[in-house]
Amino acid sequence: MLKPDWIAVDWGTSNMRAWAMSASGTVLDEMRSDRGMGSLKPAEFEQALRDAIAAWDHKGTPIIACGMVGSRQGWVEAPYVECPAALDDAAARLVRVAFGAGYQLHIVPGLRCVGSDGQVDVMRGEETQVAGVLAEQPEFDGVVCLPGTHSKWVHISASEIVSFQTAMTGEMFDLMANQSVLRHSVSSDALDQHAFDDAISETLSRPERLAQAMFGIRAEGLLHGLDSAKARGRLSGLLIGAELAATRPYWLGQNVLVGGAPALVALYARALAAQGVPVQTRDAERLTLAGLCLARQSLSEARH
Amino acid sequence: MLKPDWIAVDWGTSNMRAWAMSASGTVLDEMRSDRGMGSLKPAEFEQALRDAIAAWDHKGTPIIACGMVGSRQGWVEAPYVECPAALDDAAARLVRVAFGAGYQLHIVPGLRCVGSDGQVDVMRGEETQVAGVLAEQPEFDGVVCLPGTHSKWVHISASEIVSFQTAMTGEMFDLMANQSVLRHSVSSDALDQHAFDDAISETLSRPERLAQAMFGIRAEGLLHGLDSAKARGRLSGLLIGAELAATRPYWLGQNVLVGGAPALVALYARALAAQGVPVQTRDAERLTLAGLCLARQSLSEARH
Repeated sequence: MLKPDWIAVDWGTSNMRAWAMSASGTVLDEMRSDRGMGSLKPAEFEQALRDAIAAWDHKGTPIIACGMVGSRQGWVEAPYVECPAALDDAAARLVRVAFGAGYQLHIVPGLRCVGSDGQVDVMRGEETQVAGVLAEQPEFDGVVCLPGTHSKWVHISASEIVSFQTAMTGEMFDLMANQSVLRHSVSSDALDQHAFDDAISETLSRPERLAQAMFGIRAEGLLHGLDSAKARGRLSGLLIGAELAATRPYWLGQNVLVGGAPALVALYARALAAQGVPVQTRDAERLTLAGLCLARQSLSEARH
Repeated sequence: MLKPDWIAVDWGTSNMRAWAMSASGTVLDEMRSDRGMGSLKPAEFEQALRDAIAAWDHKGTPIIACGMVGSRQGWVEAPYVECPAALDDAAARLVRVAFGAGYQLHIVPGLRCVGSDGQVDVMRGEETQVAGVLAEQPEFDGVVCLPGTHSKWVHISASEIVSFQTAMTGEMFDLMANQSVLRHSVSSDALDQHAFDDAISETLSRPERLAQAMFGIRAEGLLHGLDSAKARGRLSGLLIGAELAATRPYWLGQNVLVGGAPALVALYARALAAQGVPVQTRDAERLTLAGLCLARQSLSEARH
């Protein structure tokens, strides 16, 4: 039976992923399930985790988890840490949960932030991806963009998360594409990149016209039979363009790294490149694992 | 058995309303049903209409209908009329459908428009409400705003619809309030007007931050337990504020009439008044009926 040095867990609303790790940070094995926090009752959390790691000899093995497992509706609340937040005292912030005999779960807390305009913001799970960027590039100074259901733009300087901002772009795209009147227009899975590019540049110059420009997709469909890949490209470009218009101070003249699902990362990288911003790209899972490794390392150091 | 002079019908996607009318335009009786176009197969259209007017002696009575009944997926397509469109030749544009023995249905066509930026737009049903404004105020010169699932802003001059613009504000509000992560925050039916006012003024000055400001409602809920009536007022204000930011050329210094469901009309009137724009308000149904009366009148005149 495989005996990992420690176990890494990314436990979100919809899914749970667990990795059996070696002491040097190599993935020895992995498990995926759809037993996310959102589909479980509190009484089921422990068993869901035990089931996920049952194939491994995990007695006494430290488990380090990030994501919604630490939310108020999660297993144990790991209160938000206030920004600016240094990432070198991660171990001190891990919230420890003992369960069964000799099991230890360490939960990474989320972050909170107050913007210069007084608006508050939160993240939970993405802080681990940001830590992953710093694990790979300790000197990174600039902005990490993590597109997804709720896109995060994170300003990093001197190994600290200075501030961040969230846009609901991904969730808006899903709702507009699947549930609004636009669903008739964007039924394709394909996405026309030329239509995407045009929409990005259009929204960057007139971001306030979002709700009008989106209805234009419907009107084009009715009057001119707009191709659905073009419609999808245009909807995606309008929404991402609006996000870029609002986050301009985050990316203009900055060193930007975009992390997430590869297809989405490619769209953001394309849009930013068109604005003259060169970006590094990373897969989200790689960043999550690197961030959990950093937490594991700080935990070992704290014990010695 | 009641014998109307003519029958007015508003047949949309979700509902059908029919009114038995006198020659002078008085409502003698009315019928409402949920047999909208969206829930009917083409073979069911005729029977649905017959059922709706069965209580009246309608043999040979002209029936005038507006709404999705004239869409491509409706009973008979009444092709969009191009703007600028005069409203005094309505009879010439009505699309006539004969059915059964001696029944005559006249369908009001929708409108299409090409904006100065080349963006196309369409309306179907609202043109009748606009005609209703002109029926009541033949000299009206200014802008008609018809908020709803898809808000319409219509520029009227010299009895013509010069141009119009659609914003998906109502549909976005419904999706964000009921299906997005914000549903946890805006569960109240009440709407705090102070939060609405603040959000209107905030979005008018920074409309590009819509997707970020909306997530702020979630963050405020998590961190400060934001009251749900305040959250609802804020979401409504952010979306209506973004619409007002984009339609500024339509309302700034203009003579504005807002027509629609009374609660929604009151919100738009409040937001516009705060910007120094005095508005007239009207109930949508009253406008629809006035517009159908105008079509009936032009039909009679055309025959004489």
